[in-house]
Amino acid sequence: MPRVSQHHLDARRRQILDGAARCFVRNGFHATSMADVLRETGLSAGAVYRYFRGKEELIEAIVTEVLDAIRTTFETAARTSPPPPPDVLVGQVMTEVLTERSGLSCDGEDSFPRLMIQVWTETLRNEDLSAVMRAGYLKVRESWIRVVLAYQKAGLMRDDIPADHVARTMIAAAQGFAAQQALFGSAPVSVLQDGLRALMSMGGQRAS
Amino acid sequence: MPRVSQHHLDARRRQILDGAARCFVRNGFHATSMADVLRETGLSAGAVYRYFRGKEELIEAIVTEVLDAIRTTFETAARTSPPPPPDVLVGQVMTEVLTERSGLSCDGEDSFPRLMIQVWTETLRNEDLSAVMRAGYLKVRESWIRVVLAYQKAGLMRDDIPADHVARTMIAAAQGFAAQQALFGSAPVSVLQDGLRALMSMGGQRAS
Repeated sequence: MPRVSQHHLDARRRQILDGAARCFVRNGFHATSMADVLRETGLSAGAVYRYFRGKEELIEAIVTEVLDAIRTTFETAARTSPPPPPDVLVGQVMTEVLTERSGLSCDGEDSFPRLMIQVWTETLRNEDLSAVMRAGYLKVRESWIRVVLAYQKAGLMRDDIPADHVARTMIAAAQGFAAQQALFGSAPVSVLQDGLRALMSMGGQRAS
Repeated sequence: MPRVSQHHLDARRRQILDGAARCFVRNGFHATSMADVLRETGLSAGAVYRYFRGKEELIEAIVTEVLDAIRTTFETAARTSPPPPPDVLVGQVMTEVLTERSGLSCDGEDSFPRLMIQVWTETLRNEDLSAVMRAGYLKVRESWIRVVLAYQKAGLMRDDIPADHVARTMIAAAQGFAAQQALFGSAPVSVLQDGLRALMSMGGQRAS
């Protein structure tokens, strides 16, 4: 029964990634060993190494998974015409990412944002991880660019500003909001959505 | 001549903080020792310990200084009525912070953003630093709230959204943009300013 078997493989992979992420959040990447990951997941070395060769592969898998989730949400949204406004779209993506990672709680706090800023710091000294991040970020940026071009084409946004600059700004707002959650505790995504809506209400004069 | 003496003290303090920051950016907090800081600044232990008792105090001083610079720029801006629009204000603050820290380059890259994300990760496990960050963030947030209230009072922004939510969003955009610089290389602040202006052009309907 290949279907059951694939389901089992996926569940096991999930169990390992979540356990590893909890370890990383709790103690940081450098202080976490594969032995810690085995203890956290309750699995044997054989079971874990069948999926991941080591800590680096675990980190890369976690990062890739999150970036893929972000991109998928965007690509779905970009198919509607015109796409939902930025406040709605950012809300969808952040809720999806935070909810998907809700298994990742640590001491009762959402730990995904805390994992995220650790990954950022880790990329400063880990070239493989940096390459994974760079590739994933580019894909998310391309998805956002398509959304922005759709806004501009539909006359919803001034079209004399490079779509890429808007894409970077929207991603920045989401990244910064997640960083605030890591640093100062969780807050509803609606706070960010409110802020974007207020900004959108200001009206923008075209540069003359 | 007390004026000269104060100037000398300030310059020495600056020299120590910049040297320490370069070490932190290059090797991370944990791999940096006070001996590294002495070597980097070319000062004696006596000279450095007169200002800072250790690594923790250096980190806190660097963070406090940056947060103060951000707050001061805001408070100056908030005195004009109405204050400059968000894109102009964010540009002023980010340019000031990045320019002020331009001595902090490492391998030809602006290193302030890279220091920033390391500080974020460090706050996850350092309660004193976390308290410094929290207090500084609250002050910046209060300054932004005053600016937002001025926008709303002047009829420049819809006033049915809590000013604090807008404050958090604006800070998030700046934080996220700085994180992108750390992760993917420097980019002109005008990219973020463009993005904010595009967002402002979208028009915001009031919730009915």
